[in-house]
Amino acid sequence: MSEYTRRFLVHWNDCDPAGIVFHANFIRWMDEGFTDMSRARGVDFVRLARTEPRFRGAPLVDVRCAFRAPARFGDMLEHRVAPPEFGSGRAFRLTHRFLLPDGTLAAEGEQTRIWGMSVDDVLCAVPMPPEIAARLGGPADG
Amino acid sequence: MSEYTRRFLVHWNDCDPAGIVFHANFIRWMDEGFTDMSRARGVDFVRLARTEPRFRGAPLVDVRCAFRAPARFGDMLEHRVAPPEFGSGRAFRLTHRFLLPDGTLAAEGEQTRIWGMSVDDVLCAVPMPPEIAARLGGPADG
Amino acid sequence: MSEYTRRFLVHWNDCDPAGIVFHANFIRWMDEGFTDMSRARGVDFVRLARTEPRFRGAPLVDVRCAFRAPARFGDMLEHRVAPPEFGSGRAFRLTHRFLLPDGTLAAEGEQTRIWGMSVDDVLCAVPMPPEIAARLGGPADG
Amino acid sequence: MSEYTRRFLVHWNDCDPAGIVFHANFIRWMDEGFTDMSRARGVDFVRLARTEPRFRGAPLVDVRCAFRAPARFGDMLEHRVAPPEFGSGRAFRLTHRFLLPDGTLAAEGEQTRIWGMSVDDVLCAVPMPPEIAARLGGPADG
Repeated sequence: MSEYTRRFLVHWNDCDPAGIVFHANFIRWMDEGFTDMSRARGVDFVRLARTEPRFRGAPLVDVRCAFRAPARFGDMLEHRVAPPEFGSGRAFRLTHRFLLPDGTLAAEGEQTRIWGMSVDDVLCAVPMPPEIAARLGGPADG
Repeated sequence: MSEYTRRFLVHWNDCDPAGIVFHANFIRWMDEGFTDMSRARGVDFVRLARTEPRFRGAPLVDVRCAFRAPARFGDMLEHRVAPPEFGSGRAFRLTHRFLLPDGTLAAEGEQTRIWGMSVDDVLCAVPMPPEIAARLGGPADG
Repeated sequence: MSEYTRRFLVHWNDCDPAGIVFHANFIRWMDEGFTDMSRARGVDFVRLARTEPRFRGAPLVDVRCAFRAPARFGDMLEHRVAPPEFGSGRAFRLTHRFLLPDGTLAAEGEQTRIWGMSVDDVLCAVPMPPEIAARLGGPADG
Repeated sequence: MSEYTRRFLVHWNDCDPAGIVFHANFIRWMDEGFTDMSRARGVDFVRLARTEPRFRGAPLVDVRCAFRAPARFGDMLEHRVAPPEFGSGRAFRLTHRFLLPDGTLAAEGEQTRIWGMSVDDVLCAVPMPPEIAARLGGPADG
């Protein structure tokens, strides 16, 4: 599967007195983008939580973001989320890019998440179910 | 002209530990809704500021919101903004309603704004230009 | 009892491209101020929720705020919260004022809240327990 | 010089439906902590901008944060900011730790910033003035 793309407008309250997006908003947008990508690909966290009460979502364990060019009030940003990458452990990684209207890279970031399950009231990282991984664009055998 | 309607998803970070939208987000969404309505109707604040350096936007002087029913993570909200109403003074009023997917009213609010112009470095309320008011859905003679 | 006062600094991310506090932050600060006042007066919502599982906090049903003078990055704001006022119904009202360093009123607002209790899984407004009301600065017989 | 420490309460609106701090707030708090540390050590960005119009603050170029243990509503967090570290280039690095009331590490992060100056209307990274670096706890010869 390919990148997921969404577009949204930079609003007044997203920007700081320098007239540019305050950086923490990109961190928030990465979170929203993962939710939107999941939803668009048939992975609905609300429904998952209802059908499996021990499911605890996909908690973030690490995030980073590099800021390349300022985004401003009124810019229509293009947000591209790459499908999750799985490593040797149980965490998975999502990379995000935010493009300005002229294609310039405004910011690029990376989230490390786990698939969370409550085991004896303790949050544990469990392997992401293969059918979920397949939907999100993971292993081809999903 | 009629109400402006936009739809958006309630995200995880919009909600509090009670699992419902934290109220200040409705205040933020009212601001975004006014911007989106203006933009959709050809009133672009970024361009206005460029062509008239003394233009200071449409500052909020008063806001209120009543919360009727909880909105939750994953709800697709319908946000309806009524066209600005003009009274005897220079302020104008915008009313907002937020509807849950089943049509229940989640929140309703009201913004009072002015059309801001810098006069001798002081922010002043000036009458909204008739062509702007017409575009936003104001007086029929606009 | 008298007003509760707290002081805090306006941070960069609280401000918008006009260089002034974005209005929704005052709505958030009112909420924080009520929590801080309650805590300072011995009303700890975390502990209340632990000792009475049906307690649902003090949900906001209505909020309003008027913006009088701009607050800016680096301003130390004085936030004054008046003790709750009780009317004929079960809701109570809190008034808030935000003062600039020179004493100018930046914003003033009002929250209407209820004391929330879950009855048969439905959120109900119950009378605030007299000992809580007394602590928050309510009726003298509390 | 030593770490700068500030303490603050986790508020209701900082937390998400899982009942824990939404991660982007740590990113915001790192920014606030740098401002507070600077101010406490005599580096006032508001005054700097007034005395040197070309000064553009200390823009963030990269941020990262790892989340170790959940922080919850009502927790008093201890936020420790290490003095800036200078490398071979013009950027400097700030490390942040957030501790729960029992001393557990909730989150740890890192900001990379530059000292920004406008040169021919272009934002440039210039060396931080030695007296500023000295104040912030940098090189001993500052």
